Amino acid sequence: MTDVSWAPVPEDSGFGIENLPYGVFTRPGELPRIGVAIGTAVLDLAGLAADGLLEDRRWFAAGSLNGFMAAGRPAWLASRARIIELLTIATYRERVEPHLIPLSQVELVRPVEVADFADFYSSIHHAANVGQIFRPDAIPLTPNWRRLPIAYHGRAGTVYVSGTPIFRPWGQRRDAHDSEPSYGPSQRLDLEAEVGYVVGVPSAPGWPLPTSAFRDHVFGFVLVNDWSARDIQFWESQPLGPFVGKSFATSVSPWVVPVAALEAARVPPPAQDPPVLPYLRCDEPWGLDLTLEIELNGHVIARPPFSSMYWTPPQQLAHATVGGAAVRTGDLFASGTVSGAGRPERGCLLELTWNGLEPLQLPDGTRRAYLQDGDTVTIRAFAPTATGARLAMGEVTGVIHPAPGSPAGTPTPGVA
Amino acid sequence: MTDVSWAPVPEDSGFGIENLPYGVFTRPGELPRIGVAIGTAVLDLAGLAADGLLEDRRWFAAGSLNGFMAAGRPAWLASRARIIELLTIATYRERVEPHLIPLSQVELVRPVEVADFADFYSSIHHAANVGQIFRPDAIPLTPNWRRLPIAYHGRAGTVYVSGTPIFRPWGQRRDAHDSEPSYGPSQRLDLEAEVGYVVGVPSAPGWPLPTSAFRDHVFGFVLVNDWSARDIQFWESQPLGPFVGKSFATSVSPWVVPVAALEAARVPPPAQDPPVLPYLRCDEPWGLDLTLEIELNGHVIARPPFSSMYWTPPQQLAHATVGGAAVRTGDLFASGTVSGAGRPERGCLLELTWNGLEPLQLPDGTRRAYLQDGDTVTIRAFAPTATGARLAMGEVTGVIHPAPGSPAGTPTPGVA
Repeated sequence: MTDVSWAPVPEDSGFGIENLPYGVFTRPGELPRIGVAIGTAVLDLAGLAADGLLEDRRWFAAGSLNGFMAAGRPAWLASRARIIELLTIATYRERVEPHLIPLSQVELVRPVEVADFADFYSSIHHAANVGQIFRPDAIPLTPNWRRLPIAYHGRAGTVYVSGTPIFRPWGQRRDAHDSEPSYGPSQRLDLEAEVGYVVGVPSAPGWPLPTSAFRDHVFGFVLVNDWSARDIQFWESQPLGPFVGKSFATSVSPWVVPVAALEAARVPPPAQDPPVLPYLRCDEPWGLDLTLEIELNGHVIARPPFSSMYWTPPQQLAHATVGGAAVRTGDLFASGTVSGAGRPERGCLLELTWNGLEPLQLPDGTRRAYLQDGDTVTIRAFAPTATGARLAMGEVTGVIHPAPGSPAGTPTPGVA
Repeated sequence: MTDVSWAPVPEDSGFGIENLPYGVFTRPGELPRIGVAIGTAVLDLAGLAADGLLEDRRWFAAGSLNGFMAAGRPAWLASRARIIELLTIATYRERVEPHLIPLSQVELVRPVEVADFADFYSSIHHAANVGQIFRPDAIPLTPNWRRLPIAYHGRAGTVYVSGTPIFRPWGQRRDAHDSEPSYGPSQRLDLEAEVGYVVGVPSAPGWPLPTSAFRDHVFGFVLVNDWSARDIQFWESQPLGPFVGKSFATSVSPWVVPVAALEAARVPPPAQDPPVLPYLRCDEPWGLDLTLEIELNGHVIARPPFSSMYWTPPQQLAHATVGGAAVRTGDLFASGTVSGAGRPERGCLLELTWNGLEPLQLPDGTRRAYLQDGDTVTIRAFAPTATGARLAMGEVTGVIHPAPGSPAGTPTPGVA
């Protein structure tokens, strides 16, 4: 795509014509509806459809992408092609321009009504680090790790759009040196930088999806911050996995980047050794050259490379459905924490500070073992495009608040 | 309630005037709508409302209970009281009787649109048995077990109503004696007899629900069969818990028994030692004297007592929300396998056959280590009422089918 849009696209906005991510926006007093980002504006698809410029089957005048996502790949590709026409052919400009609304004037809401949420554990560097920290006496990677993409189900009802306040969870924990569990606000509140994807087209109960079916079922990608209370998680997780420590909140970016927009970012994933079972083989390279960026209070603290992920999105979907589990429109699958091999590539504070033993020194003079009340965490990601422009996945951000109803004078967790 | 209904209630039908469980039914060519079971009939609440006999806010002419469940406890109690009036006061009979439809003429559909599904692990006997079988070298109960009600999130999108075919899952497994994992149909397909409850009234993000809030948020109870592929589960579960081994299907009973109907079944739960943290304390006795019955191909193979559960439903809900996780209308929480102390009280084949080492000898001359294709599993439960009549929770049933698309000649797993 070497087309150039007539719509203004500031250099490095990341929202050029190669991207066109979908979101749901509102303005005061108006109903939410679907738009795509272009430059510093949102293109109002419901408005375009009402003006007869875009095929409309009630997909776009909706409060979530789910209806459009369920329409399937032919509809996704046709809409994308038409939107590119409208934004690149100069003769459309007069009729289309009134439907461009500055992003500064809109509120972005959660783009997807999340059906089920499953979270993988697909970074070998993350899994090895967590293994060393949480199970110091054992081999870091469990024997199954290179054989299947490990995952657990999270809580769909607590998936929030970027910007939603994050309340510090209270809960039960017992540190290794404690004899009794205690109760209080989490002292080890963490972020997890992840990349997720959302299902558009459902599958039938009993029918696994092969890796080759990924594009026919998956609509697009989002950024995910799977907030985690490490002290609560550590105490509760045996033998059935995390529950309270991860169920209080998960944040997603407001923009869903279509699978088609990331074609130029596809790269061969790391070699898998031992070879995977046939149902996990993938004929196409499905690594993605996304660079994540984690910002804490305005300071970039890590840049995890998604291209280092051991398990790819099509392998994840094939594994999730191998037992015949059906997927539904709105299902969210996330990668798990994205961590590269290097220390500045780690995707969570658990790893970056080695569970608080090596606090981060921030340029503003403060230190962080884990998150403090008032901290702002923002995750971004960028991908290459065929034109050389940088594609942005938007951002997912959140500010830590004390739990509502916290007793006055509750000590704020500090540096370890 | 010593009222007697004018509607015929066969002795031991379990659907007397003390029960009045809610469900969603259809007849050929008719829209699904809400009814309550009485005797061998369903009372059509949408029909009653249309005739002005029952307050109607569009709750009852609906394909799920969710709208009515969201209406809250005052609405639940008012509707229940009114339905009891209509079914016990003889002068109503002429107008109400046309709205009684024989159960044999209706199809019962999934009563609840499930939002999130979380499954607990609240039977101490089950947890101890599973610990012995799966982790023979460790202490059976993990150190956290008596401190908090362990749970994990399951897959809401694969919760099906009783009677839905259950496809044997395929997947990856590695037995203890194997060096390499293999792939194929599960050889250790199991049932899990559980009791669940569904949330009616949502909670706010960040605000935990105390144990005392249980009745204000929970609409009623269902029976659950959380089908499990033990070989897949065993191999995948470290460190994040079960995923493919439990996500292919979960069956629920079509009838939701209101919390108010189980008041007479409440009993003191087993003593908890050590004492629980304050957020898990419960002022009221919330053990429930339900006796489950597991039938395999027409033979009762176990009768697990729900009264033996260590953790109670209000404790489960308080724990699930202690970190501020919000609950939504339609959330399903299940107890985990219900197992009593005795061998005939165990709630799954893993325990009943000690992972296949001690196959069950069925009266029909066959033996079972795990489930075979064609097997029918039915779970029922009964509770006492104030009148001495037996209350039935209905039943949840399922037949095992080979996976669709299974290669011809796939060997059917047999007796271990």
